[in-house]
Amino acid sequence: MAGTHERLWGGRFAEAPSEATLRFMAGRDVTPTLAADSHLVADDLWATTAHVTMLARQGIIPAAAARLLLDGLAEIGQRHRQGGFALDPAREDVHTNIELTLAEICGVEAGGRVHTGRSRNDQVATALRLYLRGHALAFAADALDLARAVLDLADGHRETLMPGFTHHQPATPTTLGHALASYAEAVARDAARLLGWLDLHNRSPLGGAAGYGTTIPLDRALTARYLAFDGPHLTSLDPLTTRGEPETDLALALATLLKHLASLAQTVILLGAPGYGLLRLSPAYSSGSSIMPQKGNPDTMEAIKAKAAVAGGIVAGLLGVGAAAFMGYNRDTQWSKYLIVDLVGEATDATAVMAGALTTMSIDRERAAALAGGGFVGSAALMEWLVTAHGLPLRQAKHAVEAAVRLSEDAGADEVTAVALREVLADAGLTLTLDDAEVVAVQQPAAIVRAARAIGGPAPEAVAEAIASLREQMAGLTVRLNRAHERTAAAKTLLRADGANLGTMESTSR
Amino acid sequence: MAGTHERLWGGRFAEAPSEATLRFMAGRDVTPTLAADSHLVADDLWATTAHVTMLARQGIIPAAAARLLLDGLAEIGQRHRQGGFALDPAREDVHTNIELTLAEICGVEAGGRVHTGRSRNDQVATALRLYLRGHALAFAADALDLARAVLDLADGHRETLMPGFTHHQPATPTTLGHALASYAEAVARDAARLLGWLDLHNRSPLGGAAGYGTTIPLDRALTARYLAFDGPHLTSLDPLTTRGEPETDLALALATLLKHLASLAQTVILLGAPGYGLLRLSPAYSSGSSIMPQKGNPDTMEAIKAKAAVAGGIVAGLLGVGAAAFMGYNRDTQWSKYLIVDLVGEATDATAVMAGALTTMSIDRERAAALAGGGFVGSAALMEWLVTAHGLPLRQAKHAVEAAVRLSEDAGADEVTAVALREVLADAGLTLTLDDAEVVAVQQPAAIVRAARAIGGPAPEAVAEAIASLREQMAGLTVRLNRAHERTAAAKTLLRADGANLGTMESTSR
Amino acid sequence: MAGTHERLWGGRFAEAPSEATLRFMAGRDVTPTLAADSHLVADDLWATTAHVTMLARQGIIPAAAARLLLDGLAEIGQRHRQGGFALDPAREDVHTNIELTLAEICGVEAGGRVHTGRSRNDQVATALRLYLRGHALAFAADALDLARAVLDLADGHRETLMPGFTHHQPATPTTLGHALASYAEAVARDAARLLGWLDLHNRSPLGGAAGYGTTIPLDRALTARYLAFDGPHLTSLDPLTTRGEPETDLALALATLLKHLASLAQTVILLGAPGYGLLRLSPAYSSGSSIMPQKGNPDTMEAIKAKAAVAGGIVAGLLGVGAAAFMGYNRDTQWSKYLIVDLVGEATDATAVMAGALTTMSIDRERAAALAGGGFVGSAALMEWLVTAHGLPLRQAKHAVEAAVRLSEDAGADEVTAVALREVLADAGLTLTLDDAEVVAVQQPAAIVRAARAIGGPAPEAVAEAIASLREQMAGLTVRLNRAHERTAAAKTLLRADGANLGTMESTSR
Amino acid sequence: MAGTHERLWGGRFAEAPSEATLRFMAGRDVTPTLAADSHLVADDLWATTAHVTMLARQGIIPAAAARLLLDGLAEIGQRHRQGGFALDPAREDVHTNIELTLAEICGVEAGGRVHTGRSRNDQVATALRLYLRGHALAFAADALDLARAVLDLADGHRETLMPGFTHHQPATPTTLGHALASYAEAVARDAARLLGWLDLHNRSPLGGAAGYGTTIPLDRALTARYLAFDGPHLTSLDPLTTRGEPETDLALALATLLKHLASLAQTVILLGAPGYGLLRLSPAYSSGSSIMPQKGNPDTMEAIKAKAAVAGGIVAGLLGVGAAAFMGYNRDTQWSKYLIVDLVGEATDATAVMAGALTTMSIDRERAAALAGGGFVGSAALMEWLVTAHGLPLRQAKHAVEAAVRLSEDAGADEVTAVALREVLADAGLTLTLDDAEVVAVQQPAAIVRAARAIGGPAPEAVAEAIASLREQMAGLTVRLNRAHERTAAAKTLLRADGANLGTMESTSR
Repeated sequence: MAGTHERLWGGRFAEAPSEATLRFMAGRDVTPTLAADSHLVADDLWATTAHVTMLARQGIIPAAAARLLLDGLAEIGQRHRQGGFALDPAREDVHTNIELTLAEICGVEAGGRVHTGRSRNDQVATALRLYLRGHALAFAADALDLARAVLDLADGHRETLMPGFTHHQPATPTTLGHALASYAEAVARDAARLLGWLDLHNRSPLGGAAGYGTTIPLDRALTARYLAFDGPHLTSLDPLTTRGEPETDLALALATLLKHLASLAQTVILLGAPGYGLLRLSPAYSSGSSIMPQKGNPDTMEAIKAKAAVAGGIVAGLLGVGAAAFMGYNRDTQWSKYLIVDLVGEATDATAVMAGALTTMSIDRERAAALAGGGFVGSAALMEWLVTAHGLPLRQAKHAVEAAVRLSEDAGADEVTAVALREVLADAGLTLTLDDAEVVAVQQPAAIVRAARAIGGPAPEAVAEAIASLREQMAGLTVRLNRAHERTAAAKTLLRADGANLGTMESTSR
Repeated sequence: MAGTHERLWGGRFAEAPSEATLRFMAGRDVTPTLAADSHLVADDLWATTAHVTMLARQGIIPAAAARLLLDGLAEIGQRHRQGGFALDPAREDVHTNIELTLAEICGVEAGGRVHTGRSRNDQVATALRLYLRGHALAFAADALDLARAVLDLADGHRETLMPGFTHHQPATPTTLGHALASYAEAVARDAARLLGWLDLHNRSPLGGAAGYGTTIPLDRALTARYLAFDGPHLTSLDPLTTRGEPETDLALALATLLKHLASLAQTVILLGAPGYGLLRLSPAYSSGSSIMPQKGNPDTMEAIKAKAAVAGGIVAGLLGVGAAAFMGYNRDTQWSKYLIVDLVGEATDATAVMAGALTTMSIDRERAAALAGGGFVGSAALMEWLVTAHGLPLRQAKHAVEAAVRLSEDAGADEVTAVALREVLADAGLTLTLDDAEVVAVQQPAAIVRAARAIGGPAPEAVAEAIASLREQMAGLTVRLNRAHERTAAAKTLLRADGANLGTMESTSR
Repeated sequence: MAGTHERLWGGRFAEAPSEATLRFMAGRDVTPTLAADSHLVADDLWATTAHVTMLARQGIIPAAAARLLLDGLAEIGQRHRQGGFALDPAREDVHTNIELTLAEICGVEAGGRVHTGRSRNDQVATALRLYLRGHALAFAADALDLARAVLDLADGHRETLMPGFTHHQPATPTTLGHALASYAEAVARDAARLLGWLDLHNRSPLGGAAGYGTTIPLDRALTARYLAFDGPHLTSLDPLTTRGEPETDLALALATLLKHLASLAQTVILLGAPGYGLLRLSPAYSSGSSIMPQKGNPDTMEAIKAKAAVAGGIVAGLLGVGAAAFMGYNRDTQWSKYLIVDLVGEATDATAVMAGALTTMSIDRERAAALAGGGFVGSAALMEWLVTAHGLPLRQAKHAVEAAVRLSEDAGADEVTAVALREVLADAGLTLTLDDAEVVAVQQPAAIVRAARAIGGPAPEAVAEAIASLREQMAGLTVRLNRAHERTAAAKTLLRADGANLGTMESTSR
Repeated sequence: MAGTHERLWGGRFAEAPSEATLRFMAGRDVTPTLAADSHLVADDLWATTAHVTMLARQGIIPAAAARLLLDGLAEIGQRHRQGGFALDPAREDVHTNIELTLAEICGVEAGGRVHTGRSRNDQVATALRLYLRGHALAFAADALDLARAVLDLADGHRETLMPGFTHHQPATPTTLGHALASYAEAVARDAARLLGWLDLHNRSPLGGAAGYGTTIPLDRALTARYLAFDGPHLTSLDPLTTRGEPETDLALALATLLKHLASLAQTVILLGAPGYGLLRLSPAYSSGSSIMPQKGNPDTMEAIKAKAAVAGGIVAGLLGVGAAAFMGYNRDTQWSKYLIVDLVGEATDATAVMAGALTTMSIDRERAAALAGGGFVGSAALMEWLVTAHGLPLRQAKHAVEAAVRLSEDAGADEVTAVALREVLADAGLTLTLDDAEVVAVQQPAAIVRAARAIGGPAPEAVAEAIASLREQMAGLTVRLNRAHERTAAAKTLLRADGANLGTMESTSR
């Protein structure tokens, strides 16, 4: 058998799923999960570099030792980027791995000074805070990318009629563009929620030691600057007692994002099932069957639904870890790390897969339009026309149309006939001048959609307006996102500069 | 038996729990829960008033009918405020109750027009959005009140020594002021999270009808203004497909607030248990036992812990309701209403009870100070002193102190003796000039605390600084809170004015 | 407006939903929730009667006092059955309400003896255990009733062809009878799980006092007999430390039952949606729309889906309440009562509504049969025929059929043609003697279903066999259920007899 | 640094934690998680062997091919046991890995026949069912082991007085033996719940194919026998629609077990904290601090608390996966595999660690006894003595003792004095003849405990009786456990025999 991936199905597919999609569908079946701390190497190095630089600037450790340590940290960073810094399971955690390696590189005299004025408690909390912030920003960017792709697709389908569903049943007509834009609104909100994480949690635990400070004269504001935090936590104890809370907020943001994706996935699944058949996923985002050669299954969409369910459990788990905890650090909270690392793993690629599936699916416009009509879907519009064009109170119009629906249905029609409407109105003692053609016209899906022009409605120009507003909203979010990245870059530049200048000149950071 | 409350315990208590506290502890044992919609009357009336006023200004319904409707709505509002508008279970929900009562008051001709251009779907979503916003603001205010009370208490205990715990064990000394301030930091963050709800969800679903708009030419921006929203949802469909999401965000904010309270409650329980005995809850916040006359049980604190656990389940439930939902409204999401109404009920009074319990508890400063010492709690400070005063690398200092602890313990001491330290250093080939008195002094709890001066530490001046920073942060949140309230008031004023001017003059709202 | 229920929709429905269905759909909108303890009156009276009878038989309280107490308890029981025993919120809980009323009826001299040798802790736990057992049995009976109804329906549809779905897509054909029987298997398992509750939890906490026993010489085995328990808890402390656990097990059983119902509900919703249209819910189990007169929405099914989601949250909440609790009773666990009472409330009627919806829905057999064919659904059967009739290895047969599907599809067919199959086999160097008619025949839905005769398969006789096996399994469960009821009745008879004979003769219970 | 494990703490500990304990505390920090399917290799081989044997016996595949396949499966099994069968991530899942390897070993002619009459859907479900059953039995055995260890410890501490706590406060005295036995009762119930899993789920999905059976004439009863199932699922569809349910039941059983362990852990933590100091964990089950050399932290106990919280989230997640699923297989449910595999990983070793911690901890009997007295802990017993020895109604006795507590406390006593009691009784107009020495005696902890002799109470002989009853109960569970293992062994023997006899003689299995 040839090819990098061997599967027992797929013979029928001209275009196969990509490696990435196959991995996405296969979940954790044959893929091991990395040790949690392997995700924290870069962030712990950054925080340790900031700590060492501050210690030296405060005169707490000698500049010479600091320079050795900074060189050592840079060396470990390089090994890590080149894949040469595997965590040794015999060395407890990432922090011990780094500290012991540092001692090997710099010698014990310098290496033995790195942990001055910090505890593993604040060190872990700091590395995790950086990890969480990084992922809040990355997922915000992903959400914006997806929302952009959805909006582009929506723009091209502002005229594509389809049924608007309530209770899984066709109701008032709408357009595919309108439906898609509504998901973009939800996903843009996800980006805002993710960015909002920083408003609550972009504070440094570093230097809080085991929660009760230290007698070492640290400059916590400086390390906070080096790490692009808004400042240190205002009490050293809060971030340790409440460890897991920034994780929970990120988890809820991801769970909500995944819930939106799951709803979109279910919509794609149902609209693509033979019953509706409005769309068809690309083979690149489907899988085959080992026994039913004709199947093209929406496994990517199902995987997304599963991830949303898993996310809900992780939120529940995070709320449970450390529940009713006595003040101060307790090791229980370490498990919050595994939960959030797992969720980040599950959520990664979900937006990209969804964007890929949406932009490659084929859409059957004729079938969609056909499904948008019939079944008395124009009754509500007819009722509204009796209100706006003929001045009937809504409840009166509604009773009339309800009766007309019954009459028309009995006569075998699937929209209200002028005859029926006239009879019903006469029975009610109402004498309106009705134009037969107009009675038919106002019930047509395209006409209904065109008339639904208020903000947020499905009329093509209303959808265009919604798209424009969403793009503006997203532009604002992108500015916030970029600012966060620029600030991070500036903090790193300052840290490098201050590290380079140790012992030779005044800091640029004051 | 006399008195309004009869209990089988309490004979021993001079000062009895208040009625409110008894209700808080009794939970739902003997108290029925109101119908969910009874909480939505005022908000549905507001939204309906806004809708009617807009319909008239758009010329969709006659001004005369609108005036009748506005008078009818005002009449229902008055009945409601006077307790005279009980929901009739035979009338389906709050919306039907109001509409049918309105028809009774105004007649069918006017009453039959109120529902023009809206569906129950957007109507429910709007009333709920107002309800949620009102509670987000109210709980934010509660959280700020609690944080203020905690900070005041912390301020008075900046010098009250106590053990700083990690892993439930006394570690480095701290002060009660420091510990309390850390909870204030957490609770202030809760207020920020609650206010953050508005950034995501202060948008109007009204006029989106069943999710696909309406052919009635509504002005959705105007109703959004009348209801103090930031504007309408940008698509009519999003708020219906994602119904339950604003509920989930509020629920997580409340669950996190309650988790903070639960941690504080557990801390109060343990510090008040005979094992520590640092504090004693007032009888006003305790309960007795029906069989053990001597007990004074922290039931209020236990109730808070329970509420936090319940909140976690409600978050999980809310994430589950409407999971992987097909596009458009589905009735499942109605259950999100019950979940959030339940949680609001559970969370109400929790902050006030906590504030009351904290401000009335008695604190045994001597016992607290006694517990802060002994057990080698000064070892870390001693180690740090070897680093700062004698230039030892931290790891070397740590190994020395660890060895000295063993030696001193063997000698029956509960802090490191100068003799032991000297022996250990000599063994390690280190010759430091140690002042015996200083070896003792640096290990004293008061000295350790005084030296922990970096931002966020327990030194009295550092705690004073943290309190000042937190008060400043909270002042900013209070400004945001007040602005939201002012904006609401302004919106209501505008709505009243526009309602009063119907048919007589140009709107002030353009 | 006339009629007991007023709704703003429904004009179109000839047959309206019943009051019960309307209440089911309306949830808690306009219906208050009873105080939790109002559900415990009968069980607390039972347990108190058992306790008093035992106290007298042990000579712990005078027989005369006991007789007064038993009369008083009987009197309260009668008031309760007649609706005349409302809980007074000023009297803390159901236990205090009963004890104070008893004192009013019997006087303080007798009334003051009822609480001898018990604490509220064991008293609450006992009343709840009886409540939980009663509901475990009641829901087991409900599940069996539903399973029976589903099996009867399945029996009538053993020949009703429909598509068998995987991934929401038609796959191999099946019958409606087969699909329904599979849900009966799941619901019968729910009944078994509910009965299994008794294996773990049918033990008496009564007499354990506050968890550490009492110096009063109780006969705990006797009260356990009076209450139809398997015996007392073997330690007095276990049921108090783990309070909430029997609630959690019942909650999971109900959550799983509701999850089965939710899956069935979703299946009904989708098969009833216009896309499939295999079935149509009776108007008695649907609702209309306030704006779209033509809609018939599956709100009952959606309510069931919501209840399943709520149940999941309640399980999570119950696992959270009392998590990592210190030994002994803590008041937190009181909240487990509210959670289970809420869930019982949500789950009540769900099985009856589902049974009603299923047995009244109309089924479109022609449409179902039509959907079962086409789309190459017979490919798998064709492949298997190549294996069984022609001896090809499965993988070889599969590759051949996959290729034949491609060829046939290109030729515009929707099943594999003999021409295509022959060409493909020839290409593979295989020379089989194929009968053209048979190639067509084996791909026909009815033939496929008839051939799937192994245990559990969709062949009509296999479904008949499954139905028979399930009925047998359910008969066994019914026996267990009946035995539990008989045992309860016997225990009550014994208790009454022993109570009547107090002081006059030897107990019949030894 | 020497030694296999390098840590930054621990210098102070004479006896270090074992490798296993270190791994337990370190969680997933530096340990990768295996691919989920790596846990299913042995079970998939077993199920495939059963399937092949049945296919041959039914004449569906040639005996020669079957023999090749059985040899190939045996070969893979041997490679697996020797660590030489790593899953190739390019081969999708464990099933594809095995099938492709089989084809490599046996050739395509035989290898291509193994999948005859099954689908991956039933294949996965079967392997998982075996995996779950294996773990249900293994955890039941673990729970019994733990319960035995706890009972042995309890037996040795039947006379060790300690306070009985309620609300975290010392209440009535008890013994350590009583407290421990109560946890054994809970853990024995866990074993029963785990064994109960088999009553619900020991049925075979194998041969149900994609849920709708197959036209291949399988003997599903035979494969069920080969796999030690109670029989096949009665419908082929149920186990696929409800996939994840056996996982959920196992998860709840593990979550409950872990909740018991967490409560025990919290009890150990608090009783071991300096405030109580009744016990001290062995260094082998503690960890040190990187900054506070004197700490001995109960990290193992905290890890257990965390695992219980994680378990709660996993239960919630499992209930969420596949919620309201449409009939038939959907890929979402694959994620239930990851959740249960994760939970099994978390739960593994927790019972052994707890048993180790308990059996190695030191107990300070003097301190425990001292804490059992004072604080009016004898008041309840005194009250009961007034009832039993003097015939007072309980409420009257209670009011008297409550008043006497107040008087005695005012007089500086910490138990009720005879003087105070006499005064109080006189005030109440009661003239009892009190023996002063007896008033003192009945309040003594040892006397109270000795008097609490009813079933389940703390009296040493009652605890002995409870231990005996629990051991008897556990013996019954052990019999069930052993029977399950014997049945498994017998099934494997039959399978091997039938495989060996293929084509040569009649099966022994009919």
